[in-house]
Amino acid sequence: MEMMTGRTLFRNYKEYDQKEVEICGWVKSNRGSKKFGFLVINDGTFFEPIQVVYDQEMGNFDTVSKLNVGTAVIVNGTVIVTPDAKQPFEIHAKSVEVEGECPSDYPLQKKRHTLEYLRSISHLRPRTNTFQAVFRVRSQIAYAIHKFFQERDFVYVHTPLITGQDCEGAGEMFQVTTMDLNKIAEEGKVDYEQDFFKKPVSLTVSGQLAGETFAQAFRNIYTFGPTFRAEDSNTTRHAAEFWMIEPEIAFADLEDNMILAEQMIKYIINYVMEHAQEELQFFNKFVDKGLLERLNHVVSSDFGRVTYTEAVKLLEEHNDEFEYKVSWGIDLQTEHERYLTEQIFKKPVFVTDYPKEIKAFYMKMNEDNKTVAAMDLLVPAIGEIIGGSQREDDLAKLEERITELGMKPEDYDFYLDLRKYGSTRHAGFGLGFERMVMYATGIANIRDVIPYPRTVGKCQY
Amino acid sequence: MEMMTGRTLFRNYKEYDQKEVEICGWVKSNRGSKKFGFLVINDGTFFEPIQVVYDQEMGNFDTVSKLNVGTAVIVNGTVIVTPDAKQPFEIHAKSVEVEGECPSDYPLQKKRHTLEYLRSISHLRPRTNTFQAVFRVRSQIAYAIHKFFQERDFVYVHTPLITGQDCEGAGEMFQVTTMDLNKIAEEGKVDYEQDFFKKPVSLTVSGQLAGETFAQAFRNIYTFGPTFRAEDSNTTRHAAEFWMIEPEIAFADLEDNMILAEQMIKYIINYVMEHAQEELQFFNKFVDKGLLERLNHVVSSDFGRVTYTEAVKLLEEHNDEFEYKVSWGIDLQTEHERYLTEQIFKKPVFVTDYPKEIKAFYMKMNEDNKTVAAMDLLVPAIGEIIGGSQREDDLAKLEERITELGMKPEDYDFYLDLRKYGSTRHAGFGLGFERMVMYATGIANIRDVIPYPRTVGKCQY
Repeated sequence: MEMMTGRTLFRNYKEYDQKEVEICGWVKSNRGSKKFGFLVINDGTFFEPIQVVYDQEMGNFDTVSKLNVGTAVIVNGTVIVTPDAKQPFEIHAKSVEVEGECPSDYPLQKKRHTLEYLRSISHLRPRTNTFQAVFRVRSQIAYAIHKFFQERDFVYVHTPLITGQDCEGAGEMFQVTTMDLNKIAEEGKVDYEQDFFKKPVSLTVSGQLAGETFAQAFRNIYTFGPTFRAEDSNTTRHAAEFWMIEPEIAFADLEDNMILAEQMIKYIINYVMEHAQEELQFFNKFVDKGLLERLNHVVSSDFGRVTYTEAVKLLEEHNDEFEYKVSWGIDLQTEHERYLTEQIFKKPVFVTDYPKEIKAFYMKMNEDNKTVAAMDLLVPAIGEIIGGSQREDDLAKLEERITELGMKPEDYDFYLDLRKYGSTRHAGFGLGFERMVMYATGIANIRDVIPYPRTVGKCQY
Repeated sequence: MEMMTGRTLFRNYKEYDQKEVEICGWVKSNRGSKKFGFLVINDGTFFEPIQVVYDQEMGNFDTVSKLNVGTAVIVNGTVIVTPDAKQPFEIHAKSVEVEGECPSDYPLQKKRHTLEYLRSISHLRPRTNTFQAVFRVRSQIAYAIHKFFQERDFVYVHTPLITGQDCEGAGEMFQVTTMDLNKIAEEGKVDYEQDFFKKPVSLTVSGQLAGETFAQAFRNIYTFGPTFRAEDSNTTRHAAEFWMIEPEIAFADLEDNMILAEQMIKYIINYVMEHAQEELQFFNKFVDKGLLERLNHVVSSDFGRVTYTEAVKLLEEHNDEFEYKVSWGIDLQTEHERYLTEQIFKKPVFVTDYPKEIKAFYMKMNEDNKTVAAMDLLVPAIGEIIGGSQREDDLAKLEERITELGMKPEDYDFYLDLRKYGSTRHAGFGLGFERMVMYATGIANIRDVIPYPRTVGKCQY
């Protein structure tokens, strides 16, 4: 008999009523009396565990009744639908076979552990309810993103991780080398001829520039890959290694960009609400009580739109409530972003047309020559979740801006070529994947949505 | 009117007969006479270009008739189905608007360019027929892989890129640092307390060990992410940065592993044959004339199975044909692998149970104590495309093997924990994503299936 997954069984248990099945999994709890007992088992494919009833008829009853939490078992038995019980069905075991024992020093005993403690055992925490839910939802969101773009014929592009470029002319980067640092210390000099790429290279902070080169060939593309920031900031929202999604669309402007972003966010949330009901209910109950209401509100709202200039006016009226006072020209802080989306608009809102000074060189200059065609999407409880813009597609203006900022146009030859040969209006945005997972789960710390998080001083496992 | 994609139009052109549409794209060719002309346009969403007929009625006829290859245009016009022509339909233009001009020094004039030349303009090559086909198929294969695993309820895991581990106890790795190398040279010492992670860290060569920790929680998982090898080998099959897919299945043995690998390969090829017919026909005509026959053969064959020991016997009979002679204990070379799959089995074949000396420490020891439960999948024209194994799940045996190989068990504490707490039979494999793309397209050089390839001394763009 082929071993069935918990998911298949839960989704189709009525079909299996009175039928014999084989399942496997790990013991979550074991309550026994002298004559019979209950094993609760989860095989990791479905959030709800399976209840198994065993009794003295079984040859190894004594062994089974003493099985520890964490033991891996294989169960053969009959499915019995239980309309009056809490769980929709149970399995009456014919046999329970021990696949792998679990000693009593297993760190995940049946009690609540703090998220801090669980972070210290990252290799075991995926076995807990919280992380079963988080990492399955993470997987589903990743798939929803691919599905969304592929259904719209976007081409998925793997932009390079190791790069000789510094996309935004800023941002702390990790250097990548094959040179022996001790040898460098010993010899007292750095000779890049000895390095793998014969020059200094770093880990990418964004795939956007490379993504644009593909949008000018495939019209609609997206990236979905890791990015790196060596920023020395120890917050609950930043990690040194995280994943980003960066779509780029040609023959498209800022308006098209906002439409795409809104459709994508709604698609992702709808997908998770359909495929991870059990997980979302768990989060709503134990992690963030407003979660389901918020997600439902997002998918049914038309996202707001406001220019930076209008937003600043709206916020200035509430300056007494802010730690940092708002005035035209400042970079909005999280407190301002949240106030806009939570208090003023009470739904997700795009803020557009920011002052050029606080945005990147590649953003399209507006006619006022003061603001650029940028957009940030702000959502309740998080603040900024997406940042994007229409790109400057005018060769002369882009060269001017690069020079103005003290960068060298020759470092951007390939990028300028896009504006020389069949240039098009185009736009794109970046979605921080982990922020999307935090948003969909209510989990507050980025370390708890990444399998093995990397932050300052932390690179365990 | 919303701009339609070329793909939507090609897939549904009959619906649009006699209807007005708006399309956009880049001019591939422009043939004009005094009274009318033909523009061939591609918007990058479909392999076949769209033929546009324009005539003197148009206000800007003179401008349009002089448009260069590479110009970005927006066309409004009527779809006319053309059952007797080479192309299924054409568009009779009402207007052709220039979105972005293209000067005559555009490097991609309408003639054949060598792949070598195109590599030197990686930012423009996606606009050529060959790379339109390659990178769309690459995108489709990526999606097919996600679809295959998600349909089977596998959880997608993002294993870390920056790692303190050295998975296979070998393999040249890239070091990642935020320390200033010049300062190290100056000060004559390396102080990791000054580094971002306060210790030496590298780029991962495999996500397997972390993947295993998740399989012991979710039963079935897969990774799909970048991996790095700093190997100084300048071949057509190796890149320093490439993507890997590494599924890991719990409560599963080598047999289950082979079944999964065979299903996955067939699923990918079927997906591409269904969704990229035009691209595959192009490859079959211009890149690799045996391609379609080979792919069809793979999806309709039952993959062969042979143990390493049997394979060596079979190959020894042909030792006069090999540069490197075969005998029990050697690592099979590409010439041997190809001979096995192309000449002896004439189809894909799994070679299993290799000598432990030539395989990694984590593979399950067979009862003979000489071989391990490894599997390599060999395919015609490529050789090895998948490498995998059942994993050693016995704590004592794994510790013994780690010590035997001079590694330190304490470096693998987290990995050994999996064998201590609810250990299960489990297995997994790695598929080199680029090798799969090469296999499905017939493209012979790995540099031509990666958007921006990184190889020794090459890190452009």
